[in-house]
Amino acid sequence: MFKTYWNEKLQLVEAELAQIIPQKSALSSTLCEAMNYSLMAGGKRLRPVLLIAAADAVGGEGDSFVKSACAIEMIHTYSLIHDDLPAMDNDDYRRGKLTNHKVYGDGMAVLAGDALLTMAFEVLCSQKNVNAENRLRVVREMSFSAGPNGMVGGQAIDLLSENKRIDMKTLKQMHEAKTGALFCAAIRSGAILANATDREVDALTIYAEKFGLAFQITDDILDVIGSAEKIGKPVGSDERNHKSTYVTLTSLAEAKKMAAEAVEDALHSLDIFGSQADFLRSIVQYLESRDK
Amino acid sequence: MFKTYWNEKLQLVEAELAQIIPQKSALSSTLCEAMNYSLMAGGKRLRPVLLIAAADAVGGEGDSFVKSACAIEMIHTYSLIHDDLPAMDNDDYRRGKLTNHKVYGDGMAVLAGDALLTMAFEVLCSQKNVNAENRLRVVREMSFSAGPNGMVGGQAIDLLSENKRIDMKTLKQMHEAKTGALFCAAIRSGAILANATDREVDALTIYAEKFGLAFQITDDILDVIGSAEKIGKPVGSDERNHKSTYVTLTSLAEAKKMAAEAVEDALHSLDIFGSQADFLRSIVQYLESRDK
Repeated sequence: MFKTYWNEKLQLVEAELAQIIPQKSALSSTLCEAMNYSLMAGGKRLRPVLLIAAADAVGGEGDSFVKSACAIEMIHTYSLIHDDLPAMDNDDYRRGKLTNHKVYGDGMAVLAGDALLTMAFEVLCSQKNVNAENRLRVVREMSFSAGPNGMVGGQAIDLLSENKRIDMKTLKQMHEAKTGALFCAAIRSGAILANATDREVDALTIYAEKFGLAFQITDDILDVIGSAEKIGKPVGSDERNHKSTYVTLTSLAEAKKMAAEAVEDALHSLDIFGSQADFLRSIVQYLESRDK
Repeated sequence: MFKTYWNEKLQLVEAELAQIIPQKSALSSTLCEAMNYSLMAGGKRLRPVLLIAAADAVGGEGDSFVKSACAIEMIHTYSLIHDDLPAMDNDDYRRGKLTNHKVYGDGMAVLAGDALLTMAFEVLCSQKNVNAENRLRVVREMSFSAGPNGMVGGQAIDLLSENKRIDMKTLKQMHEAKTGALFCAAIRSGAILANATDREVDALTIYAEKFGLAFQITDDILDVIGSAEKIGKPVGSDERNHKSTYVTLTSLAEAKKMAAEAVEDALHSLDIFGSQADFLRSIVQYLESRDK
């Protein structure tokens, strides 16, 4: 049931994403091609699926908010394009495909990222079945979470920490901002779009924070115990790159314990919800067992 | 009266901009410093002043929309930071100061631009004295105008036209997107925030288009007849760089005629407004006479 739900939502999101970037009337077809290249490069579509699932959890019709779900995937995709630039992580491959700037050049990759971020807000405005008040709340959620107090702030910490050992406090702060904030925006936005009560939004906010933590710790664990083929990078690369992670700063056993606690806390935060939140329960448990 | 109005609005905008970027509670003080470095680098503040003036023109209280005015300046500033990057125009100086990436490095400059763009939408949401419907319309105006169908689309055309002669049609299309669209968003947003009628918004849209055209043509003329000191770059640099402009594609005399016509059309579009639109009348006439 868990995999079926995910697959169903993933297909819904893929179909919507596939026709979201203007093609024919476009000013620059190269720009649109570059945007689509990264937007349609696959992936788990975790953030849009979480947005839809959060709406379902509070009794809304999650599928009807697919446009907002796509908007958050556009923001996530832009951040990957800019993160891969030579000026940042300088990565040549992502998910086995050449990175955006390797195909379109650095300048066009900067613009493709800029365009995806900007257009995400236009797409949010087009979520017609929601009143203006709630749509505006979602614009605020996403702009706050993706901005200097959220994702970009986390990327700045990351950039400035390159080749430096950082402590556990900084590591947590960096991940909460760089990855956690956008998970939080996805989940809170889904709830807001579905007219959740404040109590429901609060509960889901805790869920989102614990989800983000579990996601990052298990990501660090996978770097040590995963299969290179499945995770798409050599095993143990964090250690070799002197990267501070939940595993390098504690131990594999301690990291596993922390992940289990985060999953436990996330599940507990969902106590006020009935079976409509089952997907959210399954997906945070899946994080612990995943192999990629 | 014209200069007094401009100065007054400029000071209002400067004061608001000066306290818009989070400082103390910030995740990364370097990121905030980089954002502020470019945001507070001066300039004519044309876009925010136009937003306020458009609100005044339709009988609103322009000053009360200063937050939205700042948001559009943040979008403009981000576009300059990314435009100056080595991957794009590779400029070392802007307005006599080192460009963002020359001070903070390429990676941080990418992030500072990203953060300013993202935060602009958060600032738009904070425009409390306007109903959600109109605030959302402004989010749409700005995201559409700054995205792949507007500013970023124009920058893509520009990037792909480097060292190429382009024709008049492409030149117009590029400028309408790269510069015109954001002028249009500023002016339309000011009108929308002040509850303008559709007829008023339509008239101001024509004004904005003609304003953008007059701005660009006079910019190209200044490159030929301006003083190097005042315009901040060597006279005649467009010609030497084989850049297609309104002057190089026609002649100085023809460009002057086109500019005069655009100003005339802009003035005509304001016929339905009374003296409240006098600043808009003066500022488009000023374009023709400016020396920087």
